[in-house]
Amino acid sequence: MTDKKTRVFSFDRYGDADVLRLDEALLAEPEGGEVRIRVEAMSLNRADALFRRNTYFIDATLPGSRIGMDAAGTVEAIGEDVEGIEIGDRVLTWVGFDVSKYGVHGETAIVPAAFVSKYPEFLSPQEAASITAPYTTVWGALVDQGKMRKGDHVLITAASSSVGIAAIQIANAEGAIPIAATRSAQKRQSLFDAGAAHVIVTTEESLSGRVMEITGGRGAQLVFDPIAVGILGELAASAAPEGVIFLYGTLGDAGPLGSVPAELPLGLLLGKQATVRGYNNYALSADHERRQKALDYVFDGLEKGNLKVAIARDFPFEQYADAHRYLESNEQVGRVVVTV
Amino acid sequence: MTDKKTRVFSFDRYGDADVLRLDEALLAEPEGGEVRIRVEAMSLNRADALFRRNTYFIDATLPGSRIGMDAAGTVEAIGEDVEGIEIGDRVLTWVGFDVSKYGVHGETAIVPAAFVSKYPEFLSPQEAASITAPYTTVWGALVDQGKMRKGDHVLITAASSSVGIAAIQIANAEGAIPIAATRSAQKRQSLFDAGAAHVIVTTEESLSGRVMEITGGRGAQLVFDPIAVGILGELAASAAPEGVIFLYGTLGDAGPLGSVPAELPLGLLLGKQATVRGYNNYALSADHERRQKALDYVFDGLEKGNLKVAIARDFPFEQYADAHRYLESNEQVGRVVVTV
Repeated sequence: MTDKKTRVFSFDRYGDADVLRLDEALLAEPEGGEVRIRVEAMSLNRADALFRRNTYFIDATLPGSRIGMDAAGTVEAIGEDVEGIEIGDRVLTWVGFDVSKYGVHGETAIVPAAFVSKYPEFLSPQEAASITAPYTTVWGALVDQGKMRKGDHVLITAASSSVGIAAIQIANAEGAIPIAATRSAQKRQSLFDAGAAHVIVTTEESLSGRVMEITGGRGAQLVFDPIAVGILGELAASAAPEGVIFLYGTLGDAGPLGSVPAELPLGLLLGKQATVRGYNNYALSADHERRQKALDYVFDGLEKGNLKVAIARDFPFEQYADAHRYLESNEQVGRVVVTV
Repeated sequence: MTDKKTRVFSFDRYGDADVLRLDEALLAEPEGGEVRIRVEAMSLNRADALFRRNTYFIDATLPGSRIGMDAAGTVEAIGEDVEGIEIGDRVLTWVGFDVSKYGVHGETAIVPAAFVSKYPEFLSPQEAASITAPYTTVWGALVDQGKMRKGDHVLITAASSSVGIAAIQIANAEGAIPIAATRSAQKRQSLFDAGAAHVIVTTEESLSGRVMEITGGRGAQLVFDPIAVGILGELAASAAPEGVIFLYGTLGDAGPLGSVPAELPLGLLLGKQATVRGYNNYALSADHERRQKALDYVFDGLEKGNLKVAIARDFPFEQYADAHRYLESNEQVGRVVVTV
């Protein structure tokens, strides 16, 4: 322990963005297996807001829970028994650590070395902080598990989220046809600009009706959805025979995770031999070989320009709580970033 | 058209087994693409009862709808444009034809040649009539799609049905560990006799609690279920991480198919990255190469004795309606067969 200070975000009780506070703490040294990162940029996941509201599948340890899963920065201290990471390495973080203990939103972050990966020079810290959650989630679901192929129609709901935008880009990179769905007519043009081949405004049009129109009655081979509750029936109606519906979130569930089950329409599921598959990025994060494959895919796409990190807004460090409010406003198209 | 007569089962209105009647009709000749079979044995599917009650996903053409999907017999007449089938061939039938028009429960049946396959000499007509629905359904779901492996725990619900018994046998043949679930304590011993490694009586024990106990807390890699409504939450709780739940029926749905959706527990699905997959045998029936692979697998297992057709009861022709009543009593363990 030095007598240097650092500032980190934390919260003592569950609630809206007002519960967030900026603490000054003594700068700790990493223990065995840990590294300390000088954070340069951080990005917000929907999961950060759910965690703060106690509607995520992991509870916070209160009071004094840290917060934040995604960040990028430079390694400035290394504990014992850490291999493959050196001081000065530019790294990004992966989900899976104990967020209340290790949360990475602050000027510095100590995390187990198993949850960082190096990133290449050509990326800014803001871009690097915006890769794991959006892009590797899409890779893990649609490319690795879903075997997305050229010409596949891919229905992407909540398409203006950073994950949705990443899905549009990766679908295009694979020669698939991204169909973006959004509740907001105002986002239509942004989604076309992001690369959507078709945009469906679900408050104005029938989701499955439009998908069937677009696909000539066949339906979408892949569906990629973070809502589930209240929409699963329409997703099943939109799926092609033997289609796969990936559920990677539960935004449609107003209560704590899993308190409201999604209604699964059996006639459609059996008739089409469709698949509903839960996806979370924790398993990918824990598999170092597979996650490096995901990163290599994304780095390559970003370098070639097939992929491009979409940053909705970049907040200054002191406006961290405002960044949370903006995330929850659902006005953004792309990633909400905070620069340290 | 000859002046010979034949007797076939039909019904004029939806209802219980009382609506079934035995018609005498003129013996018709097969048209182009069709064959006529002298039926020697037929077997009952749950779908036959649902079809008669108007709770199947296909409506009957009334009045005068024929009935029956599974039968075995000898080809006695062949229409034009039929290849690969000769008079005297012993054949079994596949689902997928228009049941109201071609239903195979009767002394003779005319069906499109695309829906028959030859079966080997060592099988009796009663055994041959009991293969497609039970065994190829299990093969299609657990072996072909589910990639069942040695040591996998396979949870089989409604285990005393002919499909359940086939699943127990095929799991054992693959070196997997079949866990049979039933509502009836009286069926416990029969299920052990059929090869179940474990039997769970769901009216007396917690399904997921026992599965977790049996699997050392890991859960079942594969779940094979025809109920869905009212049980899907317990199935998800019983599944292993990245487990696959096959739903091949909707017995838990009291109304017309799909009228009651199953409740999908999202927390479990996402947390485990579990998969729920609809299965029906129509796609297999339509793929002649794959369905022959299924038959070869089953014929081989039956010949070697790894598999053994379990016939719950064999009714005489005139007691066809009683066979339906017995099927719906849920007292049987294995296949309900009717000999012509």
